[in-house]
Amino acid sequence: MAAESSKIDHDSGTAIKLATVELKRGVVSAGLVRGEFFWPVQQILGISDPERTRIRDMNDLIHSWDIIADKISHQTFESNGTPLAEVKLLAPIPRPTGTIMCVGKNYLDHVKEVDSKFTTGKITAPDAPQYPIIFTKAPQSVIGSGAAIRYPHGASSQVDYEAELGVIIKTAGRGIKKADAMRHVLGYTIINDVTARDIQKNHQQWFLGKSCDTFCPMGPWIVPATEVDGLNLKIECWVNDELRQSGRTSQMLFGIAELIEVISAGITIQPGDIIATGTPAGVGSGFIPPKHLKPGDRVRIRIEGIGELTNAVE
Amino acid sequence: MAAESSKIDHDSGTAIKLATVELKRGVVSAGLVRGEFFWPVQQILGISDPERTRIRDMNDLIHSWDIIADKISHQTFESNGTPLAEVKLLAPIPRPTGTIMCVGKNYLDHVKEVDSKFTTGKITAPDAPQYPIIFTKAPQSVIGSGAAIRYPHGASSQVDYEAELGVIIKTAGRGIKKADAMRHVLGYTIINDVTARDIQKNHQQWFLGKSCDTFCPMGPWIVPATEVDGLNLKIECWVNDELRQSGRTSQMLFGIAELIEVISAGITIQPGDIIATGTPAGVGSGFIPPKHLKPGDRVRIRIEGIGELTNAVE
Repeated sequence: MAAESSKIDHDSGTAIKLATVELKRGVVSAGLVRGEFFWPVQQILGISDPERTRIRDMNDLIHSWDIIADKISHQTFESNGTPLAEVKLLAPIPRPTGTIMCVGKNYLDHVKEVDSKFTTGKITAPDAPQYPIIFTKAPQSVIGSGAAIRYPHGASSQVDYEAELGVIIKTAGRGIKKADAMRHVLGYTIINDVTARDIQKNHQQWFLGKSCDTFCPMGPWIVPATEVDGLNLKIECWVNDELRQSGRTSQMLFGIAELIEVISAGITIQPGDIIATGTPAGVGSGFIPPKHLKPGDRVRIRIEGIGELTNAVE
Repeated sequence: MAAESSKIDHDSGTAIKLATVELKRGVVSAGLVRGEFFWPVQQILGISDPERTRIRDMNDLIHSWDIIADKISHQTFESNGTPLAEVKLLAPIPRPTGTIMCVGKNYLDHVKEVDSKFTTGKITAPDAPQYPIIFTKAPQSVIGSGAAIRYPHGASSQVDYEAELGVIIKTAGRGIKKADAMRHVLGYTIINDVTARDIQKNHQQWFLGKSCDTFCPMGPWIVPATEVDGLNLKIECWVNDELRQSGRTSQMLFGIAELIEVISAGITIQPGDIIATGTPAGVGSGFIPPKHLKPGDRVRIRIEGIGELTNAVE
C-alpha cells in the first residue's frame, strides 16, 4: 500500500498525470499524460499484461494504480503518444463509482464570510467548526474542464462557485490513523464545488443544493501525490478574469490526513472515493451584495502544480 | 417509460420480487422470486436473448427492468426455480451504482420526538420542515437482511435504528412533475437508516453519522410498484420483540411523487437511485432516556406487502 507510485524523474518538469480523454467521437480512454502527449493505459501495458483488458476506465485504473505505477518508467513514454491537442480532456473520473465527499467551512476566512449570511448549524457567530462538516455531491453532477455549467433555471437563482483541492483515494481502509493516511491518497485534482445557495439553505442538508447536473466540474487531470505536495499549494479562482479566491491548501482547518482519519473512523473508504477539501474565502455569496454566477460567466480555477479548470455558465 | 411492469396475476398472492441471492459460496445472482423459489434472470431469458449476457447484477437488471418485465409471463415460472431455503438472500442492490438518498424528518410525529433533543437546522420548535431534507448514505454501508450491523466502537456510542420505505428508481429523468413521478418508480424495499446520533450531531451535515459500515440494511427484496401500493403501507419496527415504531407510509409529509419532483428539479435521477423516505416516530433517541442500540440487540422491520428486514447488532 505504501508503494512508490512513480519511478519517473520528478525533476524533469514533466510530471505524469492520470487523465480521461475522448480520443475521437465516442471513444473514451483512461491513460497517462506527460508533457503534451496522452497514452491510453492499454498502450502502456504489454499485450499479454493481465491488467490490459481489466482496465476499462479511470475507476479501474485507480483500483490498479499501484500495480500500474510500478510498471511505468522512462521507457513507457518512448512509444508514440497522442498529442493532447488532438483529443478532448474529460473529467478524470467522468462517472465516479466512489463517493464524492465534500468538506464544508474548512478555511477560516471562508467560515467568516458565510456564517453571518446563513447559519445551517449551531454556529451563530463566525466560528470554526469543531468537527469536519461532510456532505456529498451526486456522481452524475461531474463534468470536465471546458464543459458548461448548466444554470438550473427554475430550481435556483443563487448559483455560486467554490474552488477546491480534490483528493483521490487509491486504497481501501477503515480506522486509518492520521500518520498513515497519506498512503491512501493517489493524487489530486481540481474541483469546483458549484452550489445553489438558495437550495442549500432551504433544504438544510446540502446534498440537493450541491448536486444539480453539471455542479461538479473536475479536472483537468489527476496529479499523483508523488509528483506534487498537496499540503501546500496555491489555489486561485477567477470569474471573468476577476480574481475572487486566493489561498493555500495549507490553510485548511482540517488537513487531508485528518479528514481521512475522521471519515474512515466508521466508513471503509474505497479506491476512487473523492474528497473535495473545502474552499477559501471569496465565494460569490460572501460579497455584499452577493456576486452569484449568471449565464455567460466563466469560472477559472488554478491550483499550483495541477493546472487549470475552466467552465462557463450557460 | 410508462410500460406496465408485470403481466402476472396480481391476485394470485404470489407477487414477483427482484432479489439478489448467493446461490452457493461466492456465486451471486440477480433474479426473480415468486412464492418460495428463485430464478436467476439468465434462466428466465432465452439463450439467444441479448439481455442475457448484459445483466450481470441488480444494477443492470434495474436498468433493463421494463424490457425484462415485458418478457415475464406465467410461463416464465414453469421452469424449475431454486428453493429460497437453499440460497442466501443478500441486499437486493448489494453495491448500488445509484445514490442512496434519504429524507430527514418526513413524519410529523418523528419531527416532534427529535426536535426537542437536537436541532440541526432552523427549526427551534417542533415544526415540520418547509422543504424536504435530503442527505445521502455511502454505498458501501449496504448489507442484506440477516447480516450484522457492526457497532462502530470508538466512533459512536449512540447507534439508532430508523425503519423506512425504500423507493427504487428505474428510469432517468429531470424536471419530473409530481403527476408523472410514479412512472419512474420500479418498486419498493425496506431500509433501516441506521444512524450514529453523536456523529450526526457533531458533524452538522449527516452523511458521516449515516454512513458507517453496515449502516444501511436493505431488503429482503424489491417488490415492483405494480404489485403493491407504496403510498399506503403499514410500517413497523421491533427491537428485541418490543414494538418501537408503527406508522403508515401515507403519513409522509412529503410523499414519494413530491420527493421525486423536488429531487429531479436540478438533478437527473438515475436508474438504481434509491430514496429512503423517512421514518415514523419511535426511534431510540426519541425516548427519555434514549433507547439506543447495543451489541446483541436485534432490529426487525416489517412493511406490509414487502416483507421483513432483520438485523442483529454485533
